[in-house]
Amino acid sequence: MIGIIMGSDSDLPVMSKAAEVLEKFGIDYEITIVSAHRTPDRMYTYAKQAEERGIKVIIAGAGGAAHLPGMVASLTHLPVIGVPIKTSSLNGLDSLLSIVQMPAGIPVATVAINNAENAALLAISILSTSNPNIAEKLKEYKNTLKEMVENKAKKLEELGYKEYLESMNG
Amino acid sequence: MIGIIMGSDSDLPVMSKAAEVLEKFGIDYEITIVSAHRTPDRMYTYAKQAEERGIKVIIAGAGGAAHLPGMVASLTHLPVIGVPIKTSSLNGLDSLLSIVQMPAGIPVATVAINNAENAALLAISILSTSNPNIAEKLKEYKNTLKEMVENKAKKLEELGYKEYLESMNG
Amino acid sequence: MIGIIMGSDSDLPVMSKAAEVLEKFGIDYEITIVSAHRTPDRMYTYAKQAEERGIKVIIAGAGGAAHLPGMVASLTHLPVIGVPIKTSSLNGLDSLLSIVQMPAGIPVATVAINNAENAALLAISILSTSNPNIAEKLKEYKNTLKEMVENKAKKLEELGYKEYLESMNG
Amino acid sequence: MIGIIMGSDSDLPVMSKAAEVLEKFGIDYEITIVSAHRTPDRMYTYAKQAEERGIKVIIAGAGGAAHLPGMVASLTHLPVIGVPIKTSSLNGLDSLLSIVQMPAGIPVATVAINNAENAALLAISILSTSNPNIAEKLKEYKNTLKEMVENKAKKLEELGYKEYLESMNG
Amino acid sequence: MIGIIMGSDSDLPVMSKAAEVLEKFGIDYEITIVSAHRTPDRMYTYAKQAEERGIKVIIAGAGGAAHLPGMVASLTHLPVIGVPIKTSSLNGLDSLLSIVQMPAGIPVATVAINNAENAALLAISILSTSNPNIAEKLKEYKNTLKEMVENKAKKLEELGYKEYLESMNG
Amino acid sequence: MIGIIMGSDSDLPVMSKAAEVLEKFGIDYEITIVSAHRTPDRMYTYAKQAEERGIKVIIAGAGGAAHLPGMVASLTHLPVIGVPIKTSSLNGLDSLLSIVQMPAGIPVATVAINNAENAALLAISILSTSNPNIAEKLKEYKNTLKEMVENKAKKLEELGYKEYLESMNG
Amino acid sequence: MIGIIMGSDSDLPVMSKAAEVLEKFGIDYEITIVSAHRTPDRMYTYAKQAEERGIKVIIAGAGGAAHLPGMVASLTHLPVIGVPIKTSSLNGLDSLLSIVQMPAGIPVATVAINNAENAALLAISILSTSNPNIAEKLKEYKNTLKEMVENKAKKLEELGYKEYLESMNG
Amino acid sequence: MIGIIMGSDSDLPVMSKAAEVLEKFGIDYEITIVSAHRTPDRMYTYAKQAEERGIKVIIAGAGGAAHLPGMVASLTHLPVIGVPIKTSSLNGLDSLLSIVQMPAGIPVATVAINNAENAALLAISILSTSNPNIAEKLKEYKNTLKEMVENKAKKLEELGYKEYLESMNG
Repeated sequence: MIGIIMGSDSDLPVMSKAAEVLEKFGIDYEITIVSAHRTPDRMYTYAKQAEERGIKVIIAGAGGAAHLPGMVASLTHLPVIGVPIKTSSLNGLDSLLSIVQMPAGIPVATVAINNAENAALLAISILSTSNPNIAEKLKEYKNTLKEMVENKAKKLEELGYKEYLESMNG
Repeated sequence: MIGIIMGSDSDLPVMSKAAEVLEKFGIDYEITIVSAHRTPDRMYTYAKQAEERGIKVIIAGAGGAAHLPGMVASLTHLPVIGVPIKTSSLNGLDSLLSIVQMPAGIPVATVAINNAENAALLAISILSTSNPNIAEKLKEYKNTLKEMVENKAKKLEELGYKEYLESMNG
Repeated sequence: MIGIIMGSDSDLPVMSKAAEVLEKFGIDYEITIVSAHRTPDRMYTYAKQAEERGIKVIIAGAGGAAHLPGMVASLTHLPVIGVPIKTSSLNGLDSLLSIVQMPAGIPVATVAINNAENAALLAISILSTSNPNIAEKLKEYKNTLKEMVENKAKKLEELGYKEYLESMNG
Repeated sequence: MIGIIMGSDSDLPVMSKAAEVLEKFGIDYEITIVSAHRTPDRMYTYAKQAEERGIKVIIAGAGGAAHLPGMVASLTHLPVIGVPIKTSSLNGLDSLLSIVQMPAGIPVATVAINNAENAALLAISILSTSNPNIAEKLKEYKNTLKEMVENKAKKLEELGYKEYLESMNG
Repeated sequence: MIGIIMGSDSDLPVMSKAAEVLEKFGIDYEITIVSAHRTPDRMYTYAKQAEERGIKVIIAGAGGAAHLPGMVASLTHLPVIGVPIKTSSLNGLDSLLSIVQMPAGIPVATVAINNAENAALLAISILSTSNPNIAEKLKEYKNTLKEMVENKAKKLEELGYKEYLESMNG
Repeated sequence: MIGIIMGSDSDLPVMSKAAEVLEKFGIDYEITIVSAHRTPDRMYTYAKQAEERGIKVIIAGAGGAAHLPGMVASLTHLPVIGVPIKTSSLNGLDSLLSIVQMPAGIPVATVAINNAENAALLAISILSTSNPNIAEKLKEYKNTLKEMVENKAKKLEELGYKEYLESMNG
Repeated sequence: MIGIIMGSDSDLPVMSKAAEVLEKFGIDYEITIVSAHRTPDRMYTYAKQAEERGIKVIIAGAGGAAHLPGMVASLTHLPVIGVPIKTSSLNGLDSLLSIVQMPAGIPVATVAINNAENAALLAISILSTSNPNIAEKLKEYKNTLKEMVENKAKKLEELGYKEYLESMNG
Repeated sequence: MIGIIMGSDSDLPVMSKAAEVLEKFGIDYEITIVSAHRTPDRMYTYAKQAEERGIKVIIAGAGGAAHLPGMVASLTHLPVIGVPIKTSSLNGLDSLLSIVQMPAGIPVATVAINNAENAALLAISILSTSNPNIAEKLKEYKNTLKEMVENKAKKLEELGYKEYLESMNG
């Protein structure tokens, strides 16, 4: 099972995309709110019990002085994936640096700002290292991505850019 | 008493300056290492017991994904002063943003990068709000700063910049 | 009493949040406009008379080349809390650096960009160091924050993310 | 087996630390040079054959316009961990953004600038999701980190900061 | 012929401006989608066959961890012009650094963020080094730019800024 | 006379504020468009003839790779004031650095991003060094600024922040 | 007379270059230390008496949260030129933004980081607006700069780059 | 012929690497100093006569407020390649933005900070569009790069990282 946590429900519009991806892949997950700063005890309990509750990978999203991913990583040996949430003043550069610049000993696997889809795909990729079925599904998924681009490319080559732009706006 | 903590002993050359200032003011302090990421339980205990152990203000220094000040602030109602430590790659911009950009509800009183002296002075200023003696000492200290600058100014005006520069290098 | 000042009335929508927090805690405050650049004499008078007028902590908000917090700090020994106001071109990075990077001797307790709530909470936390009643209220406040997050977490766990998102938008 | 690759042998002083960590944990690895820009065909072959050659996780270090981790991630479904190498002009901010800001569909698990140890620990953590022995070793490792900090803390508390600083320099 | 490629059809509103400029100059071009991350094989084929298909210069636009221009440059000896696409979180600074900071050996001719017109003009300028007709057209184009500015300047001088501003808004 | 120039008429909404200020002070000015990149000859002529045409100070606004102020400064000994125009991707940081970071020998007096009012006030201040009437007007202007702030402060103190905020929105 | 002030004698190695330039031009100046934060009263007196003491232009250097130039500008109508001093952590970006981003009403003429020569040249250029002798000297100075570059260019063209590089190192 | 110019002889240690690359490829070049700010007339003449003097591509290096590449591009239709020179305070970020962020109409082909080799290779690549011999040499060069990496990779695989590191230091 994958655990998806976030510091505030204002992060849910971003973090819910991780859940959507996991659903598409048919992977069990749970999703909840755990604030490093407002519920530190809840965070401790969550991180320390995660393994025995069957969680394999934790996806944690947070913004600003984003301490949730790093603190969870300090409290468990499970892989922790950090999603820097875009912020209104510094656009998520603060979130990114707060999550990625962890000291030696306690890594957080950081993905792009607001890119919760990639957090889910990275979690799936981690599961795939010991599960050939999941590996197969990932390969199919990558193939689908490829075909989507190829179809768009074909359409652009056939229509020309003017018609294509119109079809985008229309 | 003021508690000075830092994430690693590599921060000590910076953080010890806070201790020096407190000594000059004759203020009790303790200084130790508490790592948010390597000793999260120790951090919990430290923060939760700080008040009952007689600590009035906590000064916390950390670098990179600097979570110590913010996490301690989440675990105590005492004022927490954060010192962003300069880092080798991003020069402390990562430390600064990780410490200052706290979410509503959990402030950290952030001072300049590597400026542990100011953290101590801020702690003293906080104590001074209920201690006229300390307030008096702070005023004297500010007066001393003023006189030091005035003396240097006088010297520069008398010597001219060339001799002054020589006296700096000599 | 807490003094809340700001460089311009355009900062009031942000800075008024500090007043709201202080009201909730039942703490006396005054709020006014003091511009470092347009009313330097007023700033001098304000800062130099603050102590004798019974002010314990000063909260100062400013944007751009934000000199108000630092200059007030240079003119009083009282703790000064700086609120960097978000700016239209550099998003408040200019305000943040202008406020936080003070030289040794004159600290400003800096909080996050636009986070006047935290400035108020920090001021309250400073008062709490000598006032057990206020300390008690702060602990209750932190408990309320915790419960709010826990309630949202419970709701999210019960509803699932889809319904929760709908309830946010609805 | 873990594959460690880097864009240039100038990255070896950093990336070799990943190998050192893996050796300490007794985990098989291979280490070599694969340049996205100078040996694109080699990179294709490496990434496409990695799975069948028994590689479970790929650690890729690169600096500047750091394309190696992302391109390898586009060519395999295996988890790819990116190590941004510090650069002489932009200090690794270019490397970090080039690695972490991947588009939806192709994640790279990014660690801190120059932090190859953490890349290794993240790879180990990934392996631990299906290997209880490795999980056990990771927990021991975290315990060792904790004890190292606690020992330093004890020493600092006993010696005081002055003697401790001397012992660091001596 | 000039080849215009981009990582995603979301880049088309920007990149189509390159096509428009080439059309004005009567220069052959083709425009399509080639994603470094989602269609790496397509990118290989595109880059490796570009020369024999008669392409003289490749214009490649990409955003975020923008690897397309650099990877294409690694796979062909043709001049590659990179257009950093503005991104929602980091405004294209990530795209710019990912494209321009190429290692020695593999240059990408980088233009301003979102400035696909300039990519086309640079391609035309490259063609003009061996084609006097195109050189002539470029000189005329520059002359037209000059005249447009001079006409606006004249209008501003005649109308004054108030009427001119009204004419801009009207 | 003050010369106001800008690289493009898209800068006019910002740069016209300089003209407004000069009008209020009754100072002669001219305003026109001079593009460093599109009309380099016009720029040469403008800069080289400025002195003999009676211009005392040049105010030059430009955005992005903003070369107009620096190039004009290289072509005349008159004081040149640079106004960095806010840009859509990098918010004017590019304009600011392109204008302010001039090499030794050729200064540009740089003001804040988009702050054409201040460019005008600086020009007026320069004129005031040899014109007591203008000096007098500047002092009055500063006094007016002061009174405006004092009036707002008084209003805020009388109304309280809630009514004041309502009066701002109403 | 030109007044040169700086926040600390540690700025003297940079700021003394302004004095050197003024000496070369035979312009009267005075140079001293005035700290906005440590000697606010001295700063008030300095700024308010500058005009009557015969100062025409003030050059003010400061680093970090650099408030000296802006505060002096708020206290006098004289032109104030700000020199951002390079700082150890943020390389002077903090100084630059603290000085240049002044609010409407109070301009500071900002020059490049550490470029005190240019501050002096700008002051001279300001004086030249009402002094033809100084204007003449400035033109000669610019001519000298030009000749220095032309001589170096000639030498490089004659020697070739290899010998020239040797002559630089030798 | 390729023209290599730079704003100052302090740029020669970087820019001479462009000359070295051109020599290796047997391509004619000239190298000299042309300062946009100190010798604007020389720059005009250089740029306007470049074509008739047989120059095909101009490589221009400059630092800080780096106007040389963009101004030369405004004065000629020839392709201009810009090399941002690393600066002491802002590490070349100022140079990069001053060069790359050109407005529509006047492109500069920008390469990485201090990467004059790549400027030369880009110039060669431009020449190769109409010269099969040069195209052939470029392909060989790329092959050589590839072989160098492959040889280092082989050596690393054979020696292991410890011996390889020793051989680097030895």
